[in-house]
Amino acid sequence: MSVLPTIAFKKGAVEIIDQTLLPGKYSILRIARVEDLCEAIKALRIRGAPALGVAAAYGLLLAVEEKWRQNGLYYFDEDAANLEAFPSVTTLEAVRRVLDHVGETIRSTRPTAVNLVWAIERMKTAYGKPWDSTAEMLRTLHREARAIHNEDLEMCRAIGRHGAELLKDGDNVLTHCNTGGLATGGYGTALGVVFAAVESGKAIHVYADETRPLLQGSRLNAWECVEQGIPVTVLCDGAAASLMDEKTIACVIVGADRIAANGDTANKIGTLGLAIAARRYGVPFYVAAPSSTIDPSIPDGAAVPIEQRSPDEVKRFGGVTVTPDGVQAYNPAFDVTPHDLIAGFITENGVVRPPFRL
Amino acid sequence: MSVLPTIAFKKGAVEIIDQTLLPGKYSILRIARVEDLCEAIKALRIRGAPALGVAAAYGLLLAVEEKWRQNGLYYFDEDAANLEAFPSVTTLEAVRRVLDHVGETIRSTRPTAVNLVWAIERMKTAYGKPWDSTAEMLRTLHREARAIHNEDLEMCRAIGRHGAELLKDGDNVLTHCNTGGLATGGYGTALGVVFAAVESGKAIHVYADETRPLLQGSRLNAWECVEQGIPVTVLCDGAAASLMDEKTIACVIVGADRIAANGDTANKIGTLGLAIAARRYGVPFYVAAPSSTIDPSIPDGAAVPIEQRSPDEVKRFGGVTVTPDGVQAYNPAFDVTPHDLIAGFITENGVVRPPFRL
Repeated sequence: MSVLPTIAFKKGAVEIIDQTLLPGKYSILRIARVEDLCEAIKALRIRGAPALGVAAAYGLLLAVEEKWRQNGLYYFDEDAANLEAFPSVTTLEAVRRVLDHVGETIRSTRPTAVNLVWAIERMKTAYGKPWDSTAEMLRTLHREARAIHNEDLEMCRAIGRHGAELLKDGDNVLTHCNTGGLATGGYGTALGVVFAAVESGKAIHVYADETRPLLQGSRLNAWECVEQGIPVTVLCDGAAASLMDEKTIACVIVGADRIAANGDTANKIGTLGLAIAARRYGVPFYVAAPSSTIDPSIPDGAAVPIEQRSPDEVKRFGGVTVTPDGVQAYNPAFDVTPHDLIAGFITENGVVRPPFRL
Repeated sequence: MSVLPTIAFKKGAVEIIDQTLLPGKYSILRIARVEDLCEAIKALRIRGAPALGVAAAYGLLLAVEEKWRQNGLYYFDEDAANLEAFPSVTTLEAVRRVLDHVGETIRSTRPTAVNLVWAIERMKTAYGKPWDSTAEMLRTLHREARAIHNEDLEMCRAIGRHGAELLKDGDNVLTHCNTGGLATGGYGTALGVVFAAVESGKAIHVYADETRPLLQGSRLNAWECVEQGIPVTVLCDGAAASLMDEKTIACVIVGADRIAANGDTANKIGTLGLAIAARRYGVPFYVAAPSSTIDPSIPDGAAVPIEQRSPDEVKRFGGVTVTPDGVQAYNPAFDVTPHDLIAGFITENGVVRPPFRL
C-alpha cells in the first residue's frame, strides 16, 4: 500500500492534503502560519487523531519559523541545515515562551483528540531540557517532530500487522469515519488493518459508514479504498444495524480520539450506536489506535471532553440548507463507547484489553 | 393542530404537497394521470405508509377519471355529481378490468408499505360487489376512497389521544423519519402523538433524527414541528445513541410501514439501530401506527419484502456526488425491528402488544 502525503514539513511550511475537498479534488495546501494551521485543524482540512498529533508537532516548528523568518532564510528545511542562521540574539527562553504559547493555541483547536496534547507535551519535554544553545534545542525539536511522524507510520504498520491476524480471507469489515492514511501520518489505524490484511494476500470488502455530518466515511475512507484497489460499499449510518442483522459483517473496526484508562473510548459520533448494535448481533467490535491515544489521566469516558461543533454541519449540506428556519441542532463531534462493548484494542503492541500496561 | 392538505382528490385529479421540495418550497402538485401518481410515489413526492394508502385509493378514482375523461367533464368531483355522465356503453366489467390493472401498477410502486395493498384490497372489495349499474359502483368507490382518507384522520387522532397519555409535560421525544401530517392523511402517527400531547397542554421537545439518505426527519418532521410551534432539535442519525446515553430522552416513537403478526416492524432504515440503543439505555421504544399497518398474512419480520433504493441516494446529496467513482452503496429503504425491542404499539384501539386482536 502506498503511504499518503497527508502531512509534511517542507521548506519551512506545513503541507497537507486539504481533506475538505476530497474526493472531488486532490489538493496540497501549503501553510506558513500557525493561525492558518489552526484554521485548517478546526475546519477539518486535516483531521484524525494521529494526524493531529503530527500536525501539532510540525505546528511548533512552524511557530519558530514564522516568528523568526527573515532574509529569505528558512530554518527548518528537510535537514535543518539553515539552523545556524537563527538569530543569535534570541534566547532559549524567548523561543520556549513562543512554543509554550503556540502549544496552548494548537491544543485548544480541538478538545477531544488526546494526540494533540500528547504531541505537544512530547515536544515540550524536548525543548524544556537544559540546552547549551538555541540552535541545539531547535535541531532536537526538528528531529522530535520528524520522529513523531515516523513513529506514527511505524506504529500504524504494527497496528496493521496485529489487526490483520484477526481478519480472514473474504471478510467484510465495517468501518466508521476515516481511519486510513488521511487520519494518520500516512498509513492508517482501523483502515490500516484492512490495508495490512490485503497486503498479506487476503481479500477484504470494506463497508464504510458514511459518517454524517461531514461524511468522512463516504468521502475519505471510500476514496482511500478506491485508491488502494479495495472494494468498498458505502452506507448511511442508520443502515449499519440492518447490515449486521444480515450477518454479512465479520467485524467492526474503528479508530479512537481518546481512550480512558478503563478503556472507554471517545471516537467519531455514531461509534457508540455501532458498538451497541454489534453487541446485539455478536459482531466483534475492535478499536485500532496507537497507544498514545490512551490517556491514563482520564479514569473513564465520563471525563473525556466532548467537542460540540456548529449546528450548521447538521442543518446544511453541500451549501444547501436542509432544515427549516427555527430548528436547533445537536452536534457533538464524538461519543464515548463503554469498554464493555469493545472486544479488543489493536495497538502497536498487539491486541490488548484494559487495564493497559503503558 | 391544523390538518395538512397532504393529499386530496379535487375536480378529477389528485393534489399533493410535493414533499421533495420541502422545507425550501411549499408547492401543491396536481396529478391527472395514474402514471404521474406512480412517479410521485416512487420519487417520494408523497410518502409515509398511511398517506400511501390514501394515495392508492385516490389513484383508483384517478384511473377511471383518466380512462373515460371526455367532453371536458370530470366524473369524480367533490360530490360525484357528474357521475351520471359516465359513458353508458361502458360495462361494469370494463371498469373493473381497468381498476384491477391500475391497482397492480400502484401496488408495485413500493413493496414494503402494506397500506398500499390494504387500501387497494378495500377498494377492490367495494368495486367487486354485484352492482346494478356502473354509476352506482363508481359512486360507492368514490365514497370508499373518501372514507379511507377520513378514517385515517380519525385513526391518527385516536392514536394521538392514546399515545399522549404516555407523555409527561416537559418530555423530550425522539423521532425518526417523518411521521406527521405529511406521512398520513393529514395529522400523523408518531408525530401525531406529540401533537395530541401538546394539544392537551403538555410541553414537548422533539428530537428529530435527520434520517439519511433522504432527510425526512430534518426536512419534514422538523418542518411540521416548526409549523405547529413545537420546539425541535435535529440530529444526525448516528448521534441518537449518544443523546440517549445523556438520559435526556423520555421515549422514542416511530411509525411503521408494515407490522408482522408477531409484532416485528418494518420501518424507515435506521429504526432498528435506534431500537437497539433504546433498549440499552432503558428508553421505551414505541411504534405508532393504524391497525391497518398490521399484516396478519406475514408471520414475522423475515417475510417482509424490503425495498432496495437507488445507490445514488447515498452517493449523492443535493445534486452533489459525495463519494469517489468506483464505490457501491447499500441502500435498503427499511429495516425490521424485532418485536422484543418494542415497548408497545400505539394504535387507534389503544396501546397494544402482540398477539394482535384485529
